[in-house]
Amino acid sequence: MNTKHFLSTQDWSRSELDTLLDQARAFRESRLGDQLAGKAIALLFFNPSMRTRTSFELGAHQLGGKAIVLAPGKDAWPIEFEVGSVMDGETEEHIAEVARVLSRYVDLIGVRAFPKFQDWSVDREDTVIQAFARYSTVPVINMETITHPCQELAHIMALQQHLGTELKGRKYVLTWTYHPKPLNTAVANSALQIATRYGMDVTLLCPSGAYLLDPRYMDFARENVAANGGSLRVSHDIESAYRDADVVYAKSWGAIPFFGRWDEERQIREGNKHFIVDEAKMALTNHGLFSHCLPLRRNVKATDAVMDSPSCIAIDEAENRLHVQKAIMAALVAQPGFGIRE
Amino acid sequence: MNTKHFLSTQDWSRSELDTLLDQARAFRESRLGDQLAGKAIALLFFNPSMRTRTSFELGAHQLGGKAIVLAPGKDAWPIEFEVGSVMDGETEEHIAEVARVLSRYVDLIGVRAFPKFQDWSVDREDTVIQAFARYSTVPVINMETITHPCQELAHIMALQQHLGTELKGRKYVLTWTYHPKPLNTAVANSALQIATRYGMDVTLLCPSGAYLLDPRYMDFARENVAANGGSLRVSHDIESAYRDADVVYAKSWGAIPFFGRWDEERQIREGNKHFIVDEAKMALTNHGLFSHCLPLRRNVKATDAVMDSPSCIAIDEAENRLHVQKAIMAALVAQPGFGIRE
Amino acid sequence: MNTKHFLSTQDWSRSELDTLLDQARAFRESRLGDQLAGKAIALLFFNPSMRTRTSFELGAHQLGGKAIVLAPGKDAWPIEFEVGSVMDGETEEHIAEVARVLSRYVDLIGVRAFPKFQDWSVDREDTVIQAFARYSTVPVINMETITHPCQELAHIMALQQHLGTELKGRKYVLTWTYHPKPLNTAVANSALQIATRYGMDVTLLCPSGAYLLDPRYMDFARENVAANGGSLRVSHDIESAYRDADVVYAKSWGAIPFFGRWDEERQIREGNKHFIVDEAKMALTNHGLFSHCLPLRRNVKATDAVMDSPSCIAIDEAENRLHVQKAIMAALVAQPGFGIRE
Repeated sequence: MNTKHFLSTQDWSRSELDTLLDQARAFRESRLGDQLAGKAIALLFFNPSMRTRTSFELGAHQLGGKAIVLAPGKDAWPIEFEVGSVMDGETEEHIAEVARVLSRYVDLIGVRAFPKFQDWSVDREDTVIQAFARYSTVPVINMETITHPCQELAHIMALQQHLGTELKGRKYVLTWTYHPKPLNTAVANSALQIATRYGMDVTLLCPSGAYLLDPRYMDFARENVAANGGSLRVSHDIESAYRDADVVYAKSWGAIPFFGRWDEERQIREGNKHFIVDEAKMALTNHGLFSHCLPLRRNVKATDAVMDSPSCIAIDEAENRLHVQKAIMAALVAQPGFGIRE
Repeated sequence: MNTKHFLSTQDWSRSELDTLLDQARAFRESRLGDQLAGKAIALLFFNPSMRTRTSFELGAHQLGGKAIVLAPGKDAWPIEFEVGSVMDGETEEHIAEVARVLSRYVDLIGVRAFPKFQDWSVDREDTVIQAFARYSTVPVINMETITHPCQELAHIMALQQHLGTELKGRKYVLTWTYHPKPLNTAVANSALQIATRYGMDVTLLCPSGAYLLDPRYMDFARENVAANGGSLRVSHDIESAYRDADVVYAKSWGAIPFFGRWDEERQIREGNKHFIVDEAKMALTNHGLFSHCLPLRRNVKATDAVMDSPSCIAIDEAENRLHVQKAIMAALVAQPGFGIRE
Repeated sequence: MNTKHFLSTQDWSRSELDTLLDQARAFRESRLGDQLAGKAIALLFFNPSMRTRTSFELGAHQLGGKAIVLAPGKDAWPIEFEVGSVMDGETEEHIAEVARVLSRYVDLIGVRAFPKFQDWSVDREDTVIQAFARYSTVPVINMETITHPCQELAHIMALQQHLGTELKGRKYVLTWTYHPKPLNTAVANSALQIATRYGMDVTLLCPSGAYLLDPRYMDFARENVAANGGSLRVSHDIESAYRDADVVYAKSWGAIPFFGRWDEERQIREGNKHFIVDEAKMALTNHGLFSHCLPLRRNVKATDAVMDSPSCIAIDEAENRLHVQKAIMAALVAQPGFGIRE
């Protein structure tokens, strides 16, 4: 039997995702359950977290389970991911042992591991979580690496709360925004994936071709359009992109062709601070909703007025992280054959 | 409805405080309960902690609740507290979002945030916890900022264990002591507040007028004296202050007029190492009790002989943190209308 | 009544250890219990941990208890261990207060405190855990200091799983291996102690006399041989040591005579990289089992081929940490008179 992980929504069928969302809505109504009674999840944070940490730790608890929070390299040993390497450097332990040992202790493993931002051809291999998935004998959950599938479900759930379950035909804009640092493309990749998965008419708005996402995710989005209807277009024109939008989702990310040459990229980025989401832009939309995955720098990525307006559903989306992750954990431990220890 | 927070004992009536202390004594006899069943508290530590962390985390658990421990800027994102700021600096997330999101996840929020020690006119605004109180829709608990109200209740409870419930007429000395660093005035402010609240005859003993506390707290103490009887005097004379005291409470703090000019202040501080609490001074008292909030540097703030004597009740006071904080959490979630989610 | 701690297996009788192992096997079959219901353990990590942290935190939870994880000097105050010292340096709090306060909050205290590697005559006093044991009024558990008794039981349990309960007469090799840093002798001391305790024919294989262990542990091993049968010999010859071995246990450690002069020691260490456990050496054994306490640097201490072979039982040993530690915690709280608060 192959263990089913939750690494990418692309690995799960639309009907499986809908089932997760239904379960999440049930957890929104009634928070406590026993789906994880006697079970445990290890949460490995290679990068900081507030929402993810709180919602997973609390979510496991509310279903009768126990979360163990680990920060490798800080309060746990630094881990080696290369196969066959002679470990005479900084790493003290190989992922093979880490994953195998944790699989003896816990029933689920969550992993947050951001890119290193030196070389995209390396980062796009998503080595850390792929290695956990290979060596673990228990399901692995992506808590954000180069995609952020938990955020995807929380996002769709928030849109469905405000627009109804059927999202087909909605005009959805994923807009790049300025940020003083070059950030992870994970949430942008994820937004593109899930918005096309739910059949929306998606516009990727960004300053130039340099900010297109990795072909893997552009291709996933095109495949989703082919399978589910809707559409995908790229735009560099703010006004036409916002016009009549039902949803504006903002995210900043570093330009992939400039990975590791961030001083050069900074000049382009700093020339595009006007991509900030403000009231004037939102006024072009069809009474559009605004959201963001958080954390968000106010008055850099979106103005106070937008953040504090009733059309901002970012707090709902953040709340939904709790509900969807409980649904994911419950579904993973309910797999046939789960929990049978050799 | 206004959410009731636990930010300062001055916001709570004497009868409310007495009810908290009664509940705390009940928890001392019987540790387990279900007052927080299905509930959660987020504990935000902007500064380190041992007692506070342990007693809150364990206290919530013993009442059926779940504590989530977060260290913003370390394992969570750095937070912005200014309203309207353009967040292009180090902070990644505004308190508005942090407080609103946490309010969706948890039922209580505890905050520890010490002063920055650069400018008292800034620190005295207590920006961090005031911002949490403003934006949170759940009760906020002060885990030490520029006052330490949980410590106040633990302190009074310890005095009542050893002196009886009625503390009126007891001679109480809050003595400044030397410490190599300029410390927070929080526990000194708190001691002054709560000792006058319980009607004691309070002496603030310190090396000079430079060590007087902020007028806000001196005024609170005078108001308390007016309302509850007792008295307040300031003394710079060690012998007369200790003479016939029933209680000696020690604390070191930095002189407020020297905030941000600590090199100058250090010279005054280093000239007053003789404020250490020792057996000779304690012999002047009326078989007085000694206490301290801990952590305490032995043989700097108090001698080994004092710390290890039967008159030292610092360990009882520390134990009481567990009991009073459980009483506070239980009282806050029992507010009318609590837990009704919009 | 003297509180019984779990500091060293040498303090526990063979029949007590066997009872712990029986209980651990019962927990392996059935993970949940109520032996720690309403109880708590403080886990103090002066050094990082993955397995220890996870297995103790989860183990306490599975028995109905609550673990509080503290990292003194990082998220809690730095602690003073000297008696009588004038604390005007870096430490903020004395072990006397830390231990006494924690004893009021929790029912068990676990301590991980590695040597400082400057002066073995200091490190061998094991000051940190000895101070906790002196001042605590609740049982203290060694989570690795200069010995690692929890690992000892997990190791024996793994051997018994694969070789049967009676280990007498088995040929056991503790082999030194190279590591780029001079490591703690704790697990080596422990291996020597427990292997002789269970009556095996033990060979300590190391490059030279410089790598002999501290006389205290060499003497314990000899006493164990005298009491339990079996044998102890030291060898510097790889081939004869491995020949016909039933068990090969690997560990790297720094040479005690070179403590604090690690640049000199490094030259010896680097000349002995050939002590790596590989297939050729394992082929000399009697279909021997291989184990290690983890973390292990692959291809430095043991090759990939050895680690991934069926004879490697390191993952079983790591799993057993969970089971034996639950047995230890359950035994300590079941002491007569336990939990009677003064």
